[in-house]
Amino acid sequence: MLAHRLIERKRDGGRIDPGEWRALALAYAKGHVPDYQMAALLMACFLRGLDRSETAALTEAMLQSGDRLDLTSLNRPRVDKHSTGGVGDKVSLVLAPMVAACGVAVPMMSGRSLGHTGGTLDKLESIPGFRTNLSLADARAQIESIGCAMIGQTPEIAPADKKMYALRDATATVESIPLIASSIMSKKLAEDLTGLVLDMKRGSGAFLPELDRVLELATVMIELGADHGCPCVALVTAMDRPLGRACGNALEVEEAILTLKGEGPPDVLEVSYALGAEMLVLGGVARDIDEARRALEKAIATGTAAEHFQKIIEAQGGNPDVVEDPAILPQAAECELFNAPRRGFIARMEPRAIGRGIIEMGGGRTRVDDVTDPSVGFVITGRPGDWVEAGEPIATIFARDRSGITSGRTALRSALVIADEAEPPLPLISHRVSIDGAEPYSRE
Amino acid sequence: MLAHRLIERKRDGGRIDPGEWRALALAYAKGHVPDYQMAALLMACFLRGLDRSETAALTEAMLQSGDRLDLTSLNRPRVDKHSTGGVGDKVSLVLAPMVAACGVAVPMMSGRSLGHTGGTLDKLESIPGFRTNLSLADARAQIESIGCAMIGQTPEIAPADKKMYALRDATATVESIPLIASSIMSKKLAEDLTGLVLDMKRGSGAFLPELDRVLELATVMIELGADHGCPCVALVTAMDRPLGRACGNALEVEEAILTLKGEGPPDVLEVSYALGAEMLVLGGVARDIDEARRALEKAIATGTAAEHFQKIIEAQGGNPDVVEDPAILPQAAECELFNAPRRGFIARMEPRAIGRGIIEMGGGRTRVDDVTDPSVGFVITGRPGDWVEAGEPIATIFARDRSGITSGRTALRSALVIADEAEPPLPLISHRVSIDGAEPYSRE
Repeated sequence: MLAHRLIERKRDGGRIDPGEWRALALAYAKGHVPDYQMAALLMACFLRGLDRSETAALTEAMLQSGDRLDLTSLNRPRVDKHSTGGVGDKVSLVLAPMVAACGVAVPMMSGRSLGHTGGTLDKLESIPGFRTNLSLADARAQIESIGCAMIGQTPEIAPADKKMYALRDATATVESIPLIASSIMSKKLAEDLTGLVLDMKRGSGAFLPELDRVLELATVMIELGADHGCPCVALVTAMDRPLGRACGNALEVEEAILTLKGEGPPDVLEVSYALGAEMLVLGGVARDIDEARRALEKAIATGTAAEHFQKIIEAQGGNPDVVEDPAILPQAAECELFNAPRRGFIARMEPRAIGRGIIEMGGGRTRVDDVTDPSVGFVITGRPGDWVEAGEPIATIFARDRSGITSGRTALRSALVIADEAEPPLPLISHRVSIDGAEPYSRE
Repeated sequence: MLAHRLIERKRDGGRIDPGEWRALALAYAKGHVPDYQMAALLMACFLRGLDRSETAALTEAMLQSGDRLDLTSLNRPRVDKHSTGGVGDKVSLVLAPMVAACGVAVPMMSGRSLGHTGGTLDKLESIPGFRTNLSLADARAQIESIGCAMIGQTPEIAPADKKMYALRDATATVESIPLIASSIMSKKLAEDLTGLVLDMKRGSGAFLPELDRVLELATVMIELGADHGCPCVALVTAMDRPLGRACGNALEVEEAILTLKGEGPPDVLEVSYALGAEMLVLGGVARDIDEARRALEKAIATGTAAEHFQKIIEAQGGNPDVVEDPAILPQAAECELFNAPRRGFIARMEPRAIGRGIIEMGGGRTRVDDVTDPSVGFVITGRPGDWVEAGEPIATIFARDRSGITSGRTALRSALVIADEAEPPLPLISHRVSIDGAEPYSRE
């Protein structure tokens, strides 16, 4: 009866009060409100929107539906990063140990791959033995001892969000800015953070391709953070091409390890430094971005970042030797070069086509319960803007078998556009957004 | 997967093709599309609308999801009436036998009361023994022998609509013109009609109070009828006050019997004649409205209309003596007069308050499975526009017990407005709508 009235009100463009959101989220989490009523409400929210106070109330209600990681006894700043997701995005794997090595705790709760975008948990689990399903108590202990834990959303965290997200996925109500923002923030706020950095992807391969929508989402999340005493900063980064060269779970872990040793692709390193520097400043261990950046560069150069990754792997049951010897990672049975079909400029390398290719090859998910093969994927050396000759190798395909190679080849052919003129790719980092608004990103 | 794509498209303002509606309705009726996906789609339809061809396709899809009453072998025109529902609306009980007595078959499939509006089935079932749950075969046989059957929606008729209507009721997606129109018409078209008359209520007690929405709904239904070879005519009638005097199931049956004998309230008689005349013209047994009206007046005057009602009651297991002796109907244990609290003009007698009062007293439903007491209700003799002195009786309350009388008194107090100046009530019949458009109603 409550639900019916709220659906009706939202349908007609009205507001749902904080107390009502709270009662609704609780009733839904407990199964007292049926999925079909919540589905109708979510579609009404999708089409009518939520105002700032409604978004805050929904976030709070989902947060309150579960436990949180209590880290107040920790004598250190706690900063996490959230990415809106992309292809080849292994930044979390670099960032968490690098930032932890600089004295800021990183209680990182990540998701799995779904659709064309990858997920940090799947990447980590390609490391033999690595466990991501720690209890909140174990995660807390690990953060206290080594400054970082990299875990999945436990059942105790925001159960209302978990249930609602699955329903949104089935009812085409995912791409709503207030619903996205409250879903992400209800989980991040449960990490008991002192700050949060957002990596907002834009471009054809991003969840929200258009810059204005990306900036809007960033603003809503930053406001939600501010309303809950968690300052946030967002950087808008490019997802009109994959980030780095490796795309695929084990291949990306290898590239992350290279990056932690200072040998990764420049774009992965640059995005990691930029986000990491914001984290150190938010955490109060550096006075400004330049000082923060120097600390991060030192952590890479001296090896403390890579050592921290080893410590995390060891603490979570994985084989830490992988940092020295990435060949321990699952290896694909077949690999084959992919050559440029004609001469010209690489005009596009579409992340969605690459992501879908990985799914086709068995390395991704179209459903939450799909099992993935961590070994498959691509290493793409040709970048948008590069000049290539016909027959020049621009990628390597890693697959389980010959048919996987064929799928990979098809995916690359559909991702790749070679043209007579170069199309300028998006700037790697284009904007910085804080509670004071959005500004073009610059490194000085 | 199909459903997700269709939800997404409708959410973004797109069209769903006839083949897609068909597949969807079938899959939903069979349980292959879950309620939560249908709920999200219905909300998207509610907020984005359906165009004429989509409404036609949805109607056709729901119609095709079940059987229909095959009356093609019947050598007679077949015309039914549909009312959008109101308080005190016993017109079906007068119309069906009266029109059948004039040679037009009336295969009448009706609904139950829900919310503040009454339902023909509940009224009929207050006649001792009356069965409304005939099979389609029995209904067909009865229509062949006596020209009329008055039944409920059988499980074979438009099962997709039945399931979808229940879901709309739970998800605040009822009041959408294309969804209402397709729901009604999918059932009416299953009656294999040669014509259909629509009684479109307007005013504060109507499902859609505003005239423009009423005319829009009428137009959509008339177009749907035309697209399916079933010509329709609509009359817009007043529901800013109850129709007639009696409100409550058994009381309304008694008033319908009086009307069939020419002794009913003038408004009930007038609406019955106006709708009945359209039915006879649509059925081709009268050349024009005047000729049709004379035939109807004759059926009332000679008693053939009342005799037809007896035949229907007898055929459906009820006690036909009720037509001679309405005291056979269930009688309320308590009854009490309600007097005007002050002198002045009766400015308003709100149908919703009356309808809710009947629910309070146990004579209506807030849920589909509520059991109703047919004996309770009101006979309201004071009409909007009447001058009354303080203490003058304007209604009688019929209840199960003293607490019912109290509820009835509260309902009347909230329904009634007495003012120093008369407010002109809505015209009893204000518009006539056909495929050629809407025109003010006039009787010549």
